[in-house]
Amino acid sequence: MTDRLSALTGRLEEIDDIQRAAAVLGWDQMTYMPQGGNAGRGEQLAALASLAHERLVSPAFGDVLKAFADEVAGAPADDIRHALLRTVQRAYDQATKLPQELVGRQMRLSAEAYEAWVAARAAKDFTVFAPAFAKMVDLSREIAEALGYPEEPYDALLDLSEPGMTARAGLDLLGQLKAELVPLVQAIAAHQERVDRSILYGQFADESQWRLGLEAIAAFGFDFSRGRQDRSIHPFTTSFGVGDVRITTRIVEESFASAFFSTLHEGGHGLYEQGLPAEWARTPLGQAISSGVHESQSRLWENLVGRSRAFWRYFLPKAQAAFPVQFGHASVEDMYRAVNYVEPSLIRVDADEVTYNLHIAVRFELERALMQGELKAQDVPEAWRAKMQDYLGVTPPHDLVGALQDIHWTGGLGGFIGYTVGNVVSAQVWEAAGRALGDLPERIAQGDFAPLLQFLRREIHQLGSRETTDGFLHKATGEGLTTRPYLAYIKNKYSEIYGL
Amino acid sequence: MTDRLSALTGRLEEIDDIQRAAAVLGWDQMTYMPQGGNAGRGEQLAALASLAHERLVSPAFGDVLKAFADEVAGAPADDIRHALLRTVQRAYDQATKLPQELVGRQMRLSAEAYEAWVAARAAKDFTVFAPAFAKMVDLSREIAEALGYPEEPYDALLDLSEPGMTARAGLDLLGQLKAELVPLVQAIAAHQERVDRSILYGQFADESQWRLGLEAIAAFGFDFSRGRQDRSIHPFTTSFGVGDVRITTRIVEESFASAFFSTLHEGGHGLYEQGLPAEWARTPLGQAISSGVHESQSRLWENLVGRSRAFWRYFLPKAQAAFPVQFGHASVEDMYRAVNYVEPSLIRVDADEVTYNLHIAVRFELERALMQGELKAQDVPEAWRAKMQDYLGVTPPHDLVGALQDIHWTGGLGGFIGYTVGNVVSAQVWEAAGRALGDLPERIAQGDFAPLLQFLRREIHQLGSRETTDGFLHKATGEGLTTRPYLAYIKNKYSEIYGL
Repeated sequence: MTDRLSALTGRLEEIDDIQRAAAVLGWDQMTYMPQGGNAGRGEQLAALASLAHERLVSPAFGDVLKAFADEVAGAPADDIRHALLRTVQRAYDQATKLPQELVGRQMRLSAEAYEAWVAARAAKDFTVFAPAFAKMVDLSREIAEALGYPEEPYDALLDLSEPGMTARAGLDLLGQLKAELVPLVQAIAAHQERVDRSILYGQFADESQWRLGLEAIAAFGFDFSRGRQDRSIHPFTTSFGVGDVRITTRIVEESFASAFFSTLHEGGHGLYEQGLPAEWARTPLGQAISSGVHESQSRLWENLVGRSRAFWRYFLPKAQAAFPVQFGHASVEDMYRAVNYVEPSLIRVDADEVTYNLHIAVRFELERALMQGELKAQDVPEAWRAKMQDYLGVTPPHDLVGALQDIHWTGGLGGFIGYTVGNVVSAQVWEAAGRALGDLPERIAQGDFAPLLQFLRREIHQLGSRETTDGFLHKATGEGLTTRPYLAYIKNKYSEIYGL
Repeated sequence: MTDRLSALTGRLEEIDDIQRAAAVLGWDQMTYMPQGGNAGRGEQLAALASLAHERLVSPAFGDVLKAFADEVAGAPADDIRHALLRTVQRAYDQATKLPQELVGRQMRLSAEAYEAWVAARAAKDFTVFAPAFAKMVDLSREIAEALGYPEEPYDALLDLSEPGMTARAGLDLLGQLKAELVPLVQAIAAHQERVDRSILYGQFADESQWRLGLEAIAAFGFDFSRGRQDRSIHPFTTSFGVGDVRITTRIVEESFASAFFSTLHEGGHGLYEQGLPAEWARTPLGQAISSGVHESQSRLWENLVGRSRAFWRYFLPKAQAAFPVQFGHASVEDMYRAVNYVEPSLIRVDADEVTYNLHIAVRFELERALMQGELKAQDVPEAWRAKMQDYLGVTPPHDLVGALQDIHWTGGLGGFIGYTVGNVVSAQVWEAAGRALGDLPERIAQGDFAPLLQFLRREIHQLGSRETTDGFLHKATGEGLTTRPYLAYIKNKYSEIYGL
């Protein structure tokens, strides 16, 4: 390790330590913190965020980064230091381009918008939220101007969570999905009675659900000596380092699928975090490629594995042992069909594989129109209803199950596209894994998930951020981001299930 | 608030935020962290400690403190800013007197000593630990020289946890206790059969123990909207602010008293933390007076309340409801006597009220001799055995239940005296509360703990560090630190129980 490299990593590690400490505080806030801790926790998190930011934008850091960049300039193209430089430069540029004053304003506006959102939800009325949201859109435009963008302001926001993503690319991606999925959803909606999911509802004891979920992700390869699951109102994954990855779930005793698939989903995120390269831990190079690639890992384990026939051939006896009354008489086919029930619905987080991306399309198109000034905040509910009707054939009776359902808009715009990238990438990776491994469904039916995990470790997890989304996709699948495998998977699977 | 005051508190609050964040990480480390998190957590804690230290010793902080000191110099004697200045100056002086190099060496040596201690415990042989411990004694002398002291080096270490405490004062305090307690322990040991504690042993379901402990401290006034209890191997209390105080316990199903009194004990610490003055939160003035005063609060609720006849008049029916088989036929007198069983034993943490301080005397006198160069590290086991025999009439068969029993010496010397100060102060405060309230035992027997808590809040908790130990004792009890109430309490109580 050169002096310049170690000077850089020394500083990066300190910043990472502060950010991971903040992650611990955030995890505790969502899992165990008593209500009285709120005010103090806010101060502590703000102090840590400010310390990390201060260190990243300091002139001393800039000097060290510059010296490292000069050194790397002459290195061969495949030298990993180029990748380190790229990821660090990106973080540094983002941090230095956003004035502290703007970051502070965003934090305060988020708090204000959150309060307005809570009040609006109580009133089931978006107009209560609209003034704060309008300010958030304006501020998002300011942030976009500060960061810069290739074609239009929305690009800058998209790039924050999906490096390189643009409004144009996002619209194209969602357009391809809509073209195939809207008619498919209509066809399925006309035959909804062909699938019976009633076995998934009843009484499922909390403790048994908890154990069964853990049993599934333990089989996937989640390492409980380097992670754990706790409870929170909204499931999430966070990481304090490759040796300590936390996932959460929440259990609904009346519904089997809710916690079970949430555990598989967060378990998938957790497997990614546990597989990141330890040798680049505590630097941006040791982190995931993007939110979308992260989501591809959660969706792969939740859907491509967890909602497959092969998985239920393996796992049904375990589910039956946990819930003999509920599942004792169910066949693999019963379970497979039940967990793949499709229903055009109002709520994104409850959406199935087929309808999910249409929810994202609604949000993405509205955000883009807002950013372009083509739509005003107060007109969002009307536009929302129109798009929901067009894409899904359902219309929210009020905003609580419409434009007020997601918390995301209290913090800003641009984050939804990762969900669709995740779905699309998960199918690409799944297809490539199937090709590479040959007998993937048979392995899964035997409960042997190791070959799949090894494939993901090698092709994705172990890279950290060494490759971009497009770069890793080319290497792992032979092509860039494409909707082909995802659409083929969805159409084949659901045409069969619904007999279309 | 003046500009100079707000400049100072602004900096203090940032430091406090970092330290509280570290406390959250420390809590998680002891409660939920998986094994794989160890390495990363160590880095994160070190980064936070270094950040907080850096900020405290920075020239900018020194300037702000100096400006504040100049301002306060002219203020009336009862101005609270004097107290703030005193507590901040103390923290600043300690931090600036200890060079970073020395702090770093202490941290590394602690890690080394901890490993040696673990190995020595496995071998039940102090000589495995002795070399690292000898280095720790040398380093403690170095630290003492850096900090300065009134009479002898040990004073400097004592002052760190008990401001103003000296070796001379500690020897005197323990000497007074030994003079009365050694013969009392001998007298009790000759009549041990007079108390039967067998009802405390058997099978006590984990979940019922957990609930019963929480029921007791809820009755005391522990606020669960501003705190919670979790599990850890060694019980402890930590605070992330007055709104978020965490206690822990560990449950032994075969023994009722273990978890129950540990919850009362930590609950007492927790009540102190929850009662600290919110208006000085995030400054040293908003913190406890000393470790010893903190311990006085835990001991008061654990022993003076929890091991009183009045408490069991109130609480026995609840304990019977939780454990009908075990306690169904027990009388208040049965429970009162059982929980006050006295036995000269080898292990400090299992010691009863009568023998506890003799364990502290052994450690204190050995530490002092080590610091004075009168005793060598390798000779500790022999000296330990001799003193145990003299004070308690028992001799450890090996070092695991002798000089290797406490983890404290892996981190340094000087911390034990707080336990004895806590015991002594708890009795002084209890006597004063009894005088002030008149009908304290009757209130307790009715489960009305509010008058006692209000007394503690007013006389101790709400002060923060406004008063010194001696200062608050004079105001609350009319005299300084004295063993009289403690010895009177012990002699009266145990003479009656053991019919001496």
